[in-house]
Amino acid sequence: MFTPRAIGFARTPYKEVSSIPRGLGAQQQAEGALEILREFEEGLTDIEGFSHLFVIWEFDHADGFELYSASPTDDRPHGVFATRSPRRPNPLALTVVELLGRNGSTLRVRGVDMLDGSPILDIKPYMSAGIPAEKLRRGWLAEAEDRKAQGK
Amino acid sequence: MFTPRAIGFARTPYKEVSSIPRGLGAQQQAEGALEILREFEEGLTDIEGFSHLFVIWEFDHADGFELYSASPTDDRPHGVFATRSPRRPNPLALTVVELLGRNGSTLRVRGVDMLDGSPILDIKPYMSAGIPAEKLRRGWLAEAEDRKAQGK
Repeated sequence: MFTPRAIGFARTPYKEVSSIPRGLGAQQQAEGALEILREFEEGLTDIEGFSHLFVIWEFDHADGFELYSASPTDDRPHGVFATRSPRRPNPLALTVVELLGRNGSTLRVRGVDMLDGSPILDIKPYMSAGIPAEKLRRGWLAEAEDRKAQGK
Repeated sequence: MFTPRAIGFARTPYKEVSSIPRGLGAQQQAEGALEILREFEEGLTDIEGFSHLFVIWEFDHADGFELYSASPTDDRPHGVFATRSPRRPNPLALTVVELLGRNGSTLRVRGVDMLDGSPILDIKPYMSAGIPAEKLRRGWLAEAEDRKAQGK
């Protein structure tokens, strides 16, 4: 298998994991930057035309993995592949950001939820409309939201 | 950085890259399976509640990378981070699939676009509605579609 390498690093307001909004109803509206290494800058050509990007990055502070555990979003445990837990067999993270602008090898974005300095592995354009809310089933997450709304 | 490992393998109708629908207007409606290794099966707990999943997998047949090149979707070249080209600095692929059912460690899904046997690195639940079409700007892709519609 391949050896991952950082194509750049995230600049975000979050210096500590505890400062990142998490759990039910957390809003990710923070602005930040994706600072891409100069050697990869040519790969950003034409990216300005896209309003939204997928960012694949590394949970580089995660320590091992747990297949089944509780999360900040729900006190009931779930399988890791049904959550966004950082403690995954491959510590890969996925975030959708809005692209606000580009200056050379730096992308200014909204919606960052990474720890400052997190290694970026890949960026892909958001090419087609996402799944609309009415077509989504959201399993334990919807149930946890319902319980919260009912004050349980 | 971490050492990636396969958590499972994709089973799809595509035995050769040339058989995968690509380019403008390609529809990904093929059914297939994500066969997760038994050692990771516990991590699938509660995944059945979600209708859609993000699958991060490896373009394991990609040979190196090109930062700027043409694609099957457009005869004009673009930066690799503005495309879905397999020839990326990290050969990571991202596909959204619809979850049709689970049988133990096997997930039956719709919307596969992987070569049969591709290594799966991670699965994440699709937790909130995607970006709607009216909020998306789609850069060179929209321009290429317009040119195609006008027969240019």
